Amino acid sequence: MLTLLVGRFAAACGMSRPANQNAATLRVPYEELESTLDRAFVKIGFDPVRAKLCARLFAETTRDGVYSHGLNRFPRFLATIENGLVDIHARPERVAACCALERWDGKQGPGNLNAHDSMARAIALARESGVGCIALANTNHWMRGGTYGWQAADAGFIGVCWTNTLANVPPWGASDPRLGNNPLVIAVPRPGGHVVLDMAISQFSYGALASYRARGESLPVDGGYDSEGRLSRDPAAIEASSRGLPIGYWKGSGLSLLLDMIATLLSGGLSTVQIPRDSLKEGRVSQVFLAFNLAALDPGDFPARMADEIVRFVQLPPGSSGERVRTPGAKTLALRAENLRLGVPVDSAIWRDIQALSRVS
Amino acid sequence: MLTLLVGRFAAACGMSRPANQNAATLRVPYEELESTLDRAFVKIGFDPVRAKLCARLFAETTRDGVYSHGLNRFPRFLATIENGLVDIHARPERVAACCALERWDGKQGPGNLNAHDSMARAIALARESGVGCIALANTNHWMRGGTYGWQAADAGFIGVCWTNTLANVPPWGASDPRLGNNPLVIAVPRPGGHVVLDMAISQFSYGALASYRARGESLPVDGGYDSEGRLSRDPAAIEASSRGLPIGYWKGSGLSLLLDMIATLLSGGLSTVQIPRDSLKEGRVSQVFLAFNLAALDPGDFPARMADEIVRFVQLPPGSSGERVRTPGAKTLALRAENLRLGVPVDSAIWRDIQALSRVS
Repeated sequence: MLTLLVGRFAAACGMSRPANQNAATLRVPYEELESTLDRAFVKIGFDPVRAKLCARLFAETTRDGVYSHGLNRFPRFLATIENGLVDIHARPERVAACCALERWDGKQGPGNLNAHDSMARAIALARESGVGCIALANTNHWMRGGTYGWQAADAGFIGVCWTNTLANVPPWGASDPRLGNNPLVIAVPRPGGHVVLDMAISQFSYGALASYRARGESLPVDGGYDSEGRLSRDPAAIEASSRGLPIGYWKGSGLSLLLDMIATLLSGGLSTVQIPRDSLKEGRVSQVFLAFNLAALDPGDFPARMADEIVRFVQLPPGSSGERVRTPGAKTLALRAENLRLGVPVDSAIWRDIQALSRVS
Repeated sequence: MLTLLVGRFAAACGMSRPANQNAATLRVPYEELESTLDRAFVKIGFDPVRAKLCARLFAETTRDGVYSHGLNRFPRFLATIENGLVDIHARPERVAACCALERWDGKQGPGNLNAHDSMARAIALARESGVGCIALANTNHWMRGGTYGWQAADAGFIGVCWTNTLANVPPWGASDPRLGNNPLVIAVPRPGGHVVLDMAISQFSYGALASYRARGESLPVDGGYDSEGRLSRDPAAIEASSRGLPIGYWKGSGLSLLLDMIATLLSGGLSTVQIPRDSLKEGRVSQVFLAFNLAALDPGDFPARMADEIVRFVQLPPGSSGERVRTPGAKTLALRAENLRLGVPVDSAIWRDIQALSRVS
């Protein structure tokens, strides 16, 4: 069964939205999605409590419209369990601490569970100390980074987290990749809908490049270099050169480096320079999780009121008849509502396999 | 005397490197620069201890080659003292605290002194609690943001800080500026030379645009929009439209928004949406200062060794015969060494006025 699923890896990997792909999709009620995944993870061998959490994180990511990092990543997740990269029984362990700052070893456990535990711990520290910081080494791909931002904001905390990755972006001034795209997540709670930024430091993900290429479109802005080292908007040329562009050229190049240095030095783990450049072996990454106790500092209504005012102004300034700007997280909330109403879109082949796996006796 | 200096404001404002400008420059020994500034600040009315710190911060910024935010900003600094924006006698006050997280009111004091006090306080908190966070409201322009990154790294701490600003960048999808360029500083200590990123969220500062225009050059990459709303590399067109581009287009737009929200909500201060859009009235900004106690978590040699390994790899990977990449902070260290050796370059007119001010009896 595992082998069957893993076989679909290549097909599912580049998929970012089922609706845009050739593969048949169908819509599944959210509860059915989560409970089926739960049974599948138990069959794979997860402890029941961890299976439940893992199922919820995969299901919520798909529900929120981040298809590439939800169900469509399930085959690849299984592949990394099969090849020994991910140890489903491992739990993170604290290895050093100084009050509100702690260093944990992820023991190569499932990246989403480790990350969820780490943000929960950062929140617990911030509850006591105002701010909490967890540095996590030896963990695996955290799937959708935004998950841990929403987690902090749902608890009423400001959350910030980032991960390093394998090298897939050349530093400004160089031609070969020596920096990761190191996704960065920043979340601010707001009663009217949290504001959650979830962005890689590269201008386009490789999944996005593949989607543009499949549609025969060029990129709206420069996305990387062609094989001659010229800035390019041709997705195929950038895929061929493996030279994506950091946001802001020299600025994103510096930002990526600093995020990797902080994650590596605080966690005591691997740097981008040491992580294998093979997506099925990309493991033992380093991450940082920060939570800020806004309510302890300001129990009044200022934070909620001001957050609303800022979002309103940025979306549409007073007196403006012009365009409406989408703030980070707004698209997620819209897709979440739609998918809860209509059912969550799933790739029918992957869904059939997960259903079969959940019924194995 | 103040009026004389203020009169030079317009000329000095856009200057980023004296050596590139028409104005005559000369080189002054560092000690003379700092001591002359010290006497000038005392004459202006600063308390002697604050005058000394203010002189050092201005002199070090010039010594490090960030001319636009050092001595060349002195006339503008005086102008904001004269117009009442900056209160030279004000000291920041703590208004709320939860262990390692504190909210301070900058009381509209000098922005560089407030920021220096805040990073010092964040370091003190991190010494006790592993991590320390200061949110500062009602402060003024912090001059060179990198100063507070170097301050943390010199103390052996990882430092992160940012400020909001007046609105000078349109959000992605809009045409009028509703976001600040909100400079972000990230510093990691390294025995061989700290790695310090000091970047605004806009792709080019207005000072940089002016320099390109003066040299008759177009920008190397898109820097903003022309008056018709098209992406442009023409510095004059972008200056005319006042529509700079955030780094990474939609990504920097989100990043700028989140940095403003966190600074505003944690500090209880003004957001970019409320800060006057006039550089001589741009005041009461909000800032965040974070320090991380790397040594408490890891007293061994791992952090220093690993920082060196990462920098070496990113600069020039093993086996590569190619280009050498400059890491953030390297240019500062090179200019610092050069200026300490040859004398610090100063604009001769501004320098003459400061000397005169320092001798007023």
